Amino acid sequence: MTVSIRYFQNHLTLPPFRRGFHVITRAIQDAMPQIGEIRAGMLHAFVQHTSASLTINENADPTVRLDFEDHFSRLMPEDPSLYRHVFEGPDDMTSHIKASILGSSVSVPISRGRLALGTWQGIYLCEHREQMRRRTLVLTAHGEIGD
Amino acid sequence: MTVSIRYFQNHLTLPPFRRGFHVITRAIQDAMPQIGEIRAGMLHAFVQHTSASLTINENADPTVRLDFEDHFSRLMPEDPSLYRHVFEGPDDMTSHIKASILGSSVSVPISRGRLALGTWQGIYLCEHREQMRRRTLVLTAHGEIGD
Amino acid sequence: MTVSIRYFQNHLTLPPFRRGFHVITRAIQDAMPQIGEIRAGMLHAFVQHTSASLTINENADPTVRLDFEDHFSRLMPEDPSLYRHVFEGPDDMTSHIKASILGSSVSVPISRGRLALGTWQGIYLCEHREQMRRRTLVLTAHGEIGD
Repeated sequence: MTVSIRYFQNHLTLPPFRRGFHVITRAIQDAMPQIGEIRAGMLHAFVQHTSASLTINENADPTVRLDFEDHFSRLMPEDPSLYRHVFEGPDDMTSHIKASILGSSVSVPISRGRLALGTWQGIYLCEHREQMRRRTLVLTAHGEIGD
Repeated sequence: MTVSIRYFQNHLTLPPFRRGFHVITRAIQDAMPQIGEIRAGMLHAFVQHTSASLTINENADPTVRLDFEDHFSRLMPEDPSLYRHVFEGPDDMTSHIKASILGSSVSVPISRGRLALGTWQGIYLCEHREQMRRRTLVLTAHGEIGD
Repeated sequence: MTVSIRYFQNHLTLPPFRRGFHVITRAIQDAMPQIGEIRAGMLHAFVQHTSASLTINENADPTVRLDFEDHFSRLMPEDPSLYRHVFEGPDDMTSHIKASILGSSVSVPISRGRLALGTWQGIYLCEHREQMRRRTLVLTAHGEIGD
């Protein structure tokens, strides 16, 4: 048996999203069509910013994303007396903390040309800043090529 | 030197665990015996659910796992007035939040045929729902084959 | 086209750091010079301890790291009445919880021989214990070799 291993790497610049949690599974799949060539492997998505993050959660009910936003804002109150680093406003340091709690990257297995997500799982971009901005992801897919 | 690279992917369906934190390192190793063939590489474990999670922590003292359960339940109180998404009960939305804080996956290096965990590290399944259910993991091991 | 895939694995033992958050990007790069050989791939850093963690955040302003320490200590109060597992002191169980919230590992893409970190991103060692100690990381870099 000859097995061929490949690494693919693409950038994905997302349009500005408003503060909150957004399902971006489709945008990631569209930006990395080579997932379809991989029999068994991994997809890694990495956000190159320190005030936005990536996580995996429920993909169907939009109120889940609203509850996420409420919860994280409750847990990290925007009270400037609590933080030193508030140069860019009361949502500056809180955004950094949220980003580290949720994480800069997600890894999803690839099986037979598809992301092996569970039925209800989607990939979220978590935008923590009030001021919307474009966010860049680095996508890396690697694995065994074939059917 | 000829180096051979391989990817292995197996599913592991765990028996229902009660709400709380459970060490599953052994079940993962048993479900992925190919770890033993890998000289240098990575193991990725991914839970295909949005109300359970995976983390790495202390493997010896069971009170650590009880303290984890207490802490996360204190931090995410099951007060339905705080959440919109409580269709499946007061532990519905809180389970989603816990899952994203702890994460859907863990990655562990493989060195000379073994998981390179520290002496006190084990892999936990974190079951956040009150109602027990079977949970499916996708395990991916990849790396250089050989001794 | 002939593509060569390689896995590199090195250990990095850090000097004792005081409790808090510390940028260690340079130490990781120095301990894994083979990043420079990888055209497209991944770097994985893994801490083999359960009371220290790794995360990615702002690399420039030292007050961010102070705010991180304050926030996590506020969120996980060292009140022994809240925890069973306090054999090693009031910072014992709280350190385990912080380690799981922040995580045991970070994964960063490698592009053209460099870590594909954003401009403001650095890798933090998060030391949660009061008593300083040496911490060991396992670094794994893998990917396609070439320019």
